Amino acid sequence: MKVTVYALPTLVPPATPGPAVVIDVLRATSVMITALAHGARAVRPVAEIEEARALAATFPPGTALCGGERRALPIPGFPLGNSPLEYTPEKVAGKTVILTTTNGTQALAALRHVEPLFIGAFLNAGAVARTLAHLGQDAILVCSGTRGRFSLDDASCAGRIVAHLKALVPDLVLDDLAYAALLLFETHRTNLRELISHAGHYQYLLSLGLEPDIAYCLQEDIFDLVPSASEGQIKG
Amino acid sequence: MKVTVYALPTLVPPATPGPAVVIDVLRATSVMITALAHGARAVRPVAEIEEARALAATFPPGTALCGGERRALPIPGFPLGNSPLEYTPEKVAGKTVILTTTNGTQALAALRHVEPLFIGAFLNAGAVARTLAHLGQDAILVCSGTRGRFSLDDASCAGRIVAHLKALVPDLVLDDLAYAALLLFETHRTNLRELISHAGHYQYLLSLGLEPDIAYCLQEDIFDLVPSASEGQIKG
Repeated sequence: MKVTVYALPTLVPPATPGPAVVIDVLRATSVMITALAHGARAVRPVAEIEEARALAATFPPGTALCGGERRALPIPGFPLGNSPLEYTPEKVAGKTVILTTTNGTQALAALRHVEPLFIGAFLNAGAVARTLAHLGQDAILVCSGTRGRFSLDDASCAGRIVAHLKALVPDLVLDDLAYAALLLFETHRTNLRELISHAGHYQYLLSLGLEPDIAYCLQEDIFDLVPSASEGQIKG
Repeated sequence: MKVTVYALPTLVPPATPGPAVVIDVLRATSVMITALAHGARAVRPVAEIEEARALAATFPPGTALCGGERRALPIPGFPLGNSPLEYTPEKVAGKTVILTTTNGTQALAALRHVEPLFIGAFLNAGAVARTLAHLGQDAILVCSGTRGRFSLDDASCAGRIVAHLKALVPDLVLDDLAYAALLLFETHRTNLRELISHAGHYQYLLSLGLEPDIAYCLQEDIFDLVPSASEGQIKG
């Protein structure tokens, strides 16, 4: 079994087969996992703000909620932002969440033809690895990156998943970036926060006062759920 | 002063200013540096084999030599391959080397509008860092990668250059991949070969019996030369 890590969704060659895992630690995939773990019916990722509004209008009143961000800030008129801490059971249970974010939902759009397509973050890294190990097929881990650039937070999470996988699959083969991601994670296994504090996007979120979001997203394995995306819907 | 590392030349946004450093450790930039250090008049990187032949035909007989590879193998009819060990003073002194390789010369083509554009490898990493520190401007380090993929050998070399730079520029700012590359290098500072043995391209070269090339290219700071590319020519 081989694991290949991509620094950005745009680098995945067309027709690459799944299983694939999309990672956007800060914060889109952390939000998706949290929303579904807290009882949301589904997450519908869309690229544009207007698309989110139009899709919401097709749902019966009170059954869908728009969420997301632009430049990490809430979108005017949307009931939810992009903080996973907002996605409480009280708010999202039974609802469809329509989510538009800068990097994570764009990554999902780029990979929409890949099946199965899983949603990964530190919050469910162990469960993601168990799912991949159970499938036993060559897998790709796709970092969303930050505005077209390699991001340390996503790469570290890919490394976390690879580390879990190595413990489950003795003859695991790693491509160059999978090996690099594993090394990055291993150098900071007990001090993940220090590693990720060097990420540009971490520093940006911190400058916006979003420290609680960061602390939340860096928690490992608090959920056993591996959401998957199919035909524009993400379900738990 | 900020250093930004790109995993691939295709990820560098248009109109990104220099100084830039192109890195293709195994083996194109190692070949270029060696050829120029051994007295070649210039290196002319070209994308296609036919382009190399046509350019060579414009030189007076005996003044230009074609070199390069496809799938790491020599090109039929070319006097030089892509092994830096072939680029001896006896063969290349006073000559123009016309070079076509899979990744490195393609990277140079993608960055042809960036000035200044330096040629880096482990062989001259210290000299590259000193040149950048002397300029004192924000710099980009561009890994050539391997057929559109992140390569561990190039990223480690970027990390080697960043490590040198940090020693010269106390307030150096690193982007996410610059920091990751530095960490990769630092984890194997005394055992670079072990790190790079996990690179797919390393394993491919080894399978072709090119161990001596690898050993040569992983030598650090054997040349004090920082070649630069301008108007399609690389000079020492």
